[in-house]
Formats: sequence, C-alpha cells, structure tokens
Amino acid sequence: MSYLDDILKSRRDTRHFTADEVPEEVIQKALQAGHWAPSVGLTDATKYYIIKSPEVKSAVKNLFSDYNTKAAGLTDNPEQKEQYQSLKLEAIEEAPIGLIIAYDRSVLNQFTIGTVGSNEAVKFSSVCAAQNIWLSLTEQGYGMGWVSILNYYQFKKIIHLPENMEPLGYFCIGKPATNYDNQPMLQQLNWKQKSEAPDCTEIKTIVKEEVPNFQFNSQVTNKNKTAFRQLLQDKIDSKTKPVGALGILEDLAFQLGNVFETLNPKIKNPNIVVFAADHGIANHGVSAYPQDVTRQMVHNFLEGGAAINVFCNQNNIALSIVDSGVNYDFPTNAKLIPAKIAKGTQSFLHVPAMSETELELCFEKGKSIVDDIAKTGSNCIGFGEMGIGNTSTAAVLMSLLTGFPIEECVGKGTGVEDEKLLQKQNILQKAIENYSGQALLAEQLAYFGGFEIMQMAGGMLTAYDHNMLILVDGFICSVAFLIASKMNPNINENAVFCHVSAENAHQKLLNYLGAKPILNLDLRLGEGTGCAIAFPILKSAEAFLNEMATFENAGVSRK
Amino acid sequence: MSYLDDILKSRRDTRHFTADEVPEEVIQKALQAGHWAPSVGLTDATKYYIIKSPEVKSAVKNLFSDYNTKAAGLTDNPEQKEQYQSLKLEAIEEAPIGLIIAYDRSVLNQFTIGTVGSNEAVKFSSVCAAQNIWLSLTEQGYGMGWVSILNYYQFKKIIHLPENMEPLGYFCIGKPATNYDNQPMLQQLNWKQKSEAPDCTEIKTIVKEEVPNFQFNSQVTNKNKTAFRQLLQDKIDSKTKPVGALGILEDLAFQLGNVFETLNPKIKNPNIVVFAADHGIANHGVSAYPQDVTRQMVHNFLEGGAAINVFCNQNNIALSIVDSGVNYDFPTNAKLIPAKIAKGTQSFLHVPAMSETELELCFEKGKSIVDDIAKTGSNCIGFGEMGIGNTSTAAVLMSLLTGFPIEECVGKGTGVEDEKLLQKQNILQKAIENYSGQALLAEQLAYFGGFEIMQMAGGMLTAYDHNMLILVDGFICSVAFLIASKMNPNINENAVFCHVSAENAHQKLLNYLGAKPILNLDLRLGEGTGCAIAFPILKSAEAFLNEMATFENAGVSRK
Repeated sequence: MSYLDDILKSRRDTRHFTADEVPEEVIQKALQAGHWAPSVGLTDATKYYIIKSPEVKSAVKNLFSDYNTKAAGLTDNPEQKEQYQSLKLEAIEEAPIGLIIAYDRSVLNQFTIGTVGSNEAVKFSSVCAAQNIWLSLTEQGYGMGWVSILNYYQFKKIIHLPENMEPLGYFCIGKPATNYDNQPMLQQLNWKQKSEAPDCTEIKTIVKEEVPNFQFNSQVTNKNKTAFRQLLQDKIDSKTKPVGALGILEDLAFQLGNVFETLNPKIKNPNIVVFAADHGIANHGVSAYPQDVTRQMVHNFLEGGAAINVFCNQNNIALSIVDSGVNYDFPTNAKLIPAKIAKGTQSFLHVPAMSETELELCFEKGKSIVDDIAKTGSNCIGFGEMGIGNTSTAAVLMSLLTGFPIEECVGKGTGVEDEKLLQKQNILQKAIENYSGQALLAEQLAYFGGFEIMQMAGGMLTAYDHNMLILVDGFICSVAFLIASKMNPNINENAVFCHVSAENAHQKLLNYLGAKPILNLDLRLGEGTGCAIAFPILKSAEAFLNEMATFENAGVSRK
Repeated sequence: MSYLDDILKSRRDTRHFTADEVPEEVIQKALQAGHWAPSVGLTDATKYYIIKSPEVKSAVKNLFSDYNTKAAGLTDNPEQKEQYQSLKLEAIEEAPIGLIIAYDRSVLNQFTIGTVGSNEAVKFSSVCAAQNIWLSLTEQGYGMGWVSILNYYQFKKIIHLPENMEPLGYFCIGKPATNYDNQPMLQQLNWKQKSEAPDCTEIKTIVKEEVPNFQFNSQVTNKNKTAFRQLLQDKIDSKTKPVGALGILEDLAFQLGNVFETLNPKIKNPNIVVFAADHGIANHGVSAYPQDVTRQMVHNFLEGGAAINVFCNQNNIALSIVDSGVNYDFPTNAKLIPAKIAKGTQSFLHVPAMSETELELCFEKGKSIVDDIAKTGSNCIGFGEMGIGNTSTAAVLMSLLTGFPIEECVGKGTGVEDEKLLQKQNILQKAIENYSGQALLAEQLAYFGGFEIMQMAGGMLTAYDHNMLILVDGFICSVAFLIASKMNPNINENAVFCHVSAENAHQKLLNYLGAKPILNLDLRLGEGTGCAIAFPILKSAEAFLNEMATFENAGVSRK
C-alpha cells in the first residue's frame, strides 16, 4: 500500500470529536486541497463558509434534529427504527469547526464547457473538492463528517445563502475521538457491511439504437353519423328544461355521445397525465423560478401535496406522472412513468432543443403512455404539464405554427414580473431569428420543442385513435393540442378545452383553434389543474343526459 | 507541501495520452482507491465498467461528437466558438482504457441513511470515488480525463446499462502525454484563469426564521380580523404554486376562511333550497310556458327528475323544495317545505302583487326556513327558484332598485322568442308607469314582488347572521340578493355568485353588485342549477387550502 492508499483508507466520516481546537493553518491547507480539485470548464464555482459561532451551530443542529426525526419515520421496521435512533450521525455542536461547501449555480448562466450533457458537472466539481479536503484533513491528523440530513431550503435561509448558492451539506471538522476500529462507523455498529472489493464489469459490445418510426399521420375514416347525431340532439331536447337552457352543458353532453358513439355515454376511469420536463431556455432567465423547481414539483406530485393531487383526489380522477425529461435522476421505485428523453432540452437560443430522433422518441413515448391508459378501460384523458421555462417553448411554437408575432404569444408565465416580460420577448424573438432551418413541422418541433409538449401531442393523437375524450388544460397544453391538430384536424371533435388561463396568449390560441373553454377562473398553474377542476362539469353534462326526466315521463308541458 | 498535496496539485483532467498500455494492476489499485471513498449509509451504490473494445469506444465517440457540436452552438461569441472548437475535450478512442463510474439509484428504494435531505448523497459518494481514482492514477504515473459531454440516455442505451444505473460520465485512462505545464489545460490555453485561492467566508450569525403565531380560536373578534386575514392570506400564499396562480379559487378559499372565521374552513352539510311560486304577471303572456309548469316542475323536483336533482345528487348536496306560493294545492305528504303565502301573486300590471303583511310574512318564512337548515349544522346554503313569469318580476325590481331602464333589465326569460321580447318590455314599462306608490323599498317590494324572491331575500339575510356561505344562482336569485344587500350591505362578504347566466340583464346586475361569477356556461335554467354545478369548484377551493403542501414542507423553492 502506498502512502496515498493509507490516507484514502483511513479517511473516515467522523461523528466523534475531541475538544481540541483546529489550528487555522490546518483549515487553510485543507481548503487549498479543495481548491486543487477539478472545476468543470474552470468555472471555480465552489465556495466555502466557515462556522465557529455556537449560535449558528445550534440553529443548524435544530434543523438536523427535525429531519432526523423525519428520517426515523421512513422505516416501518421497528427494530431498524430503534437502531437508527441510536446512531450518532452528526457532531454539529461539538466539532470546533463547521464547514459549508457550496457551488454557485449561476455559473451556468454563461457558456460553460462540459455541462451540455448534464449541468450536474458543476456540483460534481465541488464534491471532488470535498473529497480532497477530507483527505487533506486525514493526512493532517484531523477528521470530517458530512451531514446531509437537513432541509436545505431552511438551511440556506438561516445562514442567509443567496438563492444561486447550493450547499452540499454541513461538514463537521475536528480531532477524531476514535477511528471506529479502522472501518466505517456503520459497519462497526453492524448496520451494514461494506463490500470487500469494487464491483467492476467489462463492456465488450454495444447495443445498436433502433430508431422508432412514428406515423405522423393518423388514419381517419369519416363515418356517416348524421342520423345518430339527430337522435342524440333529440334526447337532449326531450329533457325537462327549455331547449338550450343548460348552455355549454348541452354541447358537452352532445360531444360525449358523439365521441363515445352512444346515446348513453359514460366517462370511464378518467385519468390525468402530467408530463414533466426541463427546458434549456430556462437558463436564460425566462422564468421566475430556478429549473430545480421542476424536479421539486414532481416530487411534490409523487408525495400528493400539489394542487393537481388535491383536485384529482377530490374528483376521483386517477393521476399519472410522467418523467418526460426532468433534469434529475428519480429513484427507480418512484411512482413515475419513465419516459425520459434527456435531462432537459438544449437551449433553442443557439442550437436545436432536441434531435429529430429525440422528437420521434417523444411521439412514440406519448403514444405508448396513452395506449397503456386506454388498456385500463379509460375513455377520458386529461393532459397536464410541469416544466420550468415551458411557457417560452410554447410561445415560440405557437408563433411559428399560427403566424402570430411572438409578442402576442408570450405571457408572463408563472410569476415573471412585468419588467421581465420584454426581456423574455426579446430572447424568444432572437431565438426565432437565429433559426436557419426550414418551415417544416418536424424540423421546427425538434428545434424549439419541449419533451413534455411533444409527448402530449403524441398522446393526444393516440387518444383520438382510441375514441377517448381529450381534456386540454391551459396554454402549454393547448400548444400541444395545436401541434396534434396540425397533424390530424379531426382531433377537434374529441377535445374539451377545460379553461382559458390568465395567460393572454391562451385566449388568442383558443380563438385560433375555434375552442370554447368551460372555465374562466384566472388559473395559470398548469399541472392539468384546469382539467381536474372542470371535470365535475363534464360529469354534470353526463348526468343530465343520462338521468334527467323527459317532458313526457315527468308530465311537464313542453310549451 | 506534503506528499498528498503534490498528488492533489498534479492531478490533471487529461485529454492527451501516449500509446502506452495500462497494466491491469494499475486499474485494480485505482478501483480499490475508489472503493475506499465514502458511501452514504454504506449503500455501496458505485459500480464500475471497463471498456477496451474499439467498437464500443467508437460508438461513445460518436455520441460525444453529436453533443460537442451542440455545445459549440451554445455560445454566440464567434471567437469563443472558434476557440471552443479547437479544444481537445476527450481522448475516447486514443486512451487505452475507458472507465464508466456509475451509481445504482435503486438503493434508494430501501431505507437509506443520509438521504432524507437529498438523495443526491448517493451520487456524491460515487463522485468521491472518482476523485480517489484520479488521485491513485496520478500517484501511479497515469492520468484520467472526465468526459461529460454526452446524451446520457443514449449512452446508457448503447452500453446497455440497466434503467437504475446512472453513469457519471466516461473516463479516459492512460499515460499522460503532457502535464499542461502543471496547470489545468483550459488555463494553459488561456480559456480561463483558475482563481489563486479558495473563496471562503465565515458565517457569524443566523437569520431568525419567523414562525407565525397561529391563533386557532374560533372566536375571532372584529378588532383582530385584520391580523386573521393576513394569516389566511399567508396560508394561501404558502401553498406550492405561484402566488395567485389558482385565480378565483384563491379568492374563494379566502372567502371560506373569512366567513367561517378559521384557517381550516370546511363546508358542512351544503343545502340548496328551491323556492317556488307563481306570478300574476304570467297571465299577460310574458312567458313561453303556461303557469301550470311551475306546479309540474315542483312535482318533477319531488320525483327527482329535474336538472337540480341530478346535479345535487352528483355533488352530494342536500336539496330542499319550498312551496312559497305555487298556484296549486299539493298533497300534505309531499316532501315540500310549506311556506305558501297565497296561490300566486296578483298581477302588478294593475294592482300590488302582495300586501305589506304578505311581504313581511315572506321575510319571516324565509328566515325560519334558513334557521332550520342552520340547525342541521349546515354552513353553506344555495338559493334557487322556480316560477313561471318570475324573470318579469325580477326585471322590474332590478330596474326600480338600480335605476337602470326596464329595457336593460328584461331578458328573454326561459324560452321567449325575440319577437315577444318587445311585448314583454312594453308590458313591464306600463306596469312601472302605473305605479303610483312612493320610492320606499318595502312599498316597492310589495307592489312588484314575488313570494319566492322575497323569501329568498329574507333567507339570505338570515344566512348571513348564521355566518353561512350564500350561494347565489342566476338572474332571479341575484335580484333577491340585490334586495338583501340593500337591507344589509355586509352580506356581500358571504355571497358566492355561482354563474353569469345567458340573460343579458344578469351581467349588468352582477357588475352593479361588484360580483365576479364563477361560471359562464350560458345557463338559463334557474332551480339553483348554477349553484349545484359550481359547487365542486368551491370544494376545490376548500381542498387546496386544507390539503395542499406548503413550499416549506414540500421542499420547493419559492423563487
């Protein structure tokens, strides 16, 4: 074993410290070691914060305690819970020095070498720095413990980190009180055994990629439904109410009968599908929220805490969440439909958001998701979306496909203030001007598309093929519908436009589509919330058509 | 500088290799160094894959080339672009060994220590391993280059990695052909300068979190209502959505909390009450339907065949039918609330519709009906009506109480054709001209009133006194509300205007009342149907306020 190996092997995640001080030069030497770590594209994004104040330590300790209690609740196994609670997992108050290693994600606002595949490279550089610091402290006879059991949002708040600075955790530094018998503490305590050797496999061959061939044209037969439609209208007019007195509910009832091809239409197993993806354009300040919110909200959907969960639950609608391309790795057991194309699109300000292969994959995946839902017996599918930056994507697509100037297609999105609107318009105008491709649908969609929008468009076309009712949510979703309707204009028959949003461009787009929305409640949340909120009104249409008495059987005079 | 420091400092992200082979023992020693890296919760999630095959390398190189072209397009600066394109950022095909360091995110499927704050801890462990391997190779006289410019999904696909295995990148390993003058390559090429020293700041104080001090007392007095309202608004704004993104639902949620005086408002035992009565004016051809239809429809309500039955049934709303003065003797065992003042009013074309005593009786009966409903524990009451001719009654009352000319207050009613509209206007104009009484509210109400309208007005005032939510249906019902609000303007706080009807005068009246209706569905049926159809939206408001996660407990960034 080399000298380096000795250090690597004896480095411990330390939770037990003596009361000894840590000399300033030890810290400085360790931070210099961190500074020698790689820095993707030489961004120098790693920043350090030192904590000596007992007041600060005590506040951090409180955060730890909160989350540690939460963590203990994550296991159902009582024995495991007891053992977990007995573990010492931090030394925040005892360790003489606290260190925060953070990375400045605002470096991504500029062109950064090495981040096109994944912008995680920035945080990985900081992790390498953490490992260097650990090794340096080990060499100097000191130890470090990485505390990650914290609510990072509260953590940032109490230590007043700027929004763009992301801490890797809180690191306790001091003189180790034990070497845990020269093994990891969790192994010493029999929590788990570390495997003896690294797990390594040789890869000798590659898998050839198959390019799916999505049929961009649905095959539509125009059935002669004239006689059936007259019977349906007669049924509606026979109900004990003046003709037309239930307004839009009568149109909806007619549509239900027409799409399901029956005088007694029933909505079965309704399902709202939320497609989530990230957008490269979000790095250009077009949204008030950081990109990470897409991932956070998907987590919120899975935990049942978002608006769409509440409304689906209220109205007995099944909810499916699709990872169309979120810039994050979810646990494999998350109740997500995996359909990730990539970790977000590229920024169409300079390059195509996706390749044409990726575009085809989107349509293919959207189709397969809806096929699966149709197999459950569902005849009613609502489309929703989540994706920081996707109003920008949608605005550009709307402008290209309708011919409206971009400024008429750009809204404030969720939360952009007025002064930022012009900036957003300018960026999108520039992106359109930069486009040197042809006015071909597939080329435009690949260049400016979003993964969730394209998957929705593919899903809508498939829903039409299954004679399903297609519930369209807000602005983004209507742009997906616009794309689908360009590919198959008959799809309009199946579409229910659930609401007109507070985004100005949405009304314009609905007019272009000849759509009459059910609700006008100033919603601008997305997630399919408009579909879920409007759903009981569809049920009202279904109910009156099936359950109301006729003039004849109630003995009421027609006039 | 220590020996370790020498290694840390001389470690390079290498893109230039000699053709020398890498002995197997060098790789094994390096992987063992990786294995000594920390592993959160001892998950051992890091896996290694070795590549020697030229075919595999070539396929990976193609992926790199695709994404590198994409990356080059990310800068606008032509000079920067040219410089970027000249950079050698990989050595995939030249380096004798390719290494993939990956982590198995399926470890998160089990309880894992240290991941409650962020499951990124798993991938961070693998990054620490990468850094250890780098250092070990450096010590052994070899070098490594981290290639992250790849579409990771295609990458995983061609090398056939399972879904749960996430690569950190592709690492080129070999004998370095240069040490880049002992500095990062990008610095040597003047792309950027690495900062001289680590950036470190001491944090000496914390930002105190303000914990709102919730007063859950149900007895909120007027003097601290301002504070209560602020708490209520804070609660709405703490939900995981942009401020205001749920539009009118947010107003409704605020109203629910404000009327019920609690931060956790619950609608209890909702009840729609349909007040039915006949109108003397109906004898003058103002309606398309014979007066007998009032009686027939009450029968239909009792039999469960009317629209309001269907919608109340759909949405679990209790339905009460009141005989306020139908021109018919119902059997005493009918499930009717008896409140008959007389068998219809007189025609106000020539004489007062009712006496002032009858008017007082209306208010008393309306009060007693609502008192009884409040006793059932209901805190939400919807008002509906049925009465052939009552749009005429309502139009005259609206004209007198608002000052709008009669022609602006007359609609077609349920079913009057255009040619009859003028005749209706003329009759009502004449009735107003015939009135010789004073401009006193009670006198006007008695002269032109309808029994059901006056009972509704009395009922609404009583509902306000019980802190109940008052659901207002269409035009007739809004006129009843207009009367109630003239008597107690505070009643507006409790009113939910469920829809704007297809009666033109209704929009005008809602504007006069400063009311924002929930729905605009061209309904013109009455019976309280607008209340029943809008009710799920109120429930949505209730649900989001009570059930949605907050930014803090969902770990979602506010901005």
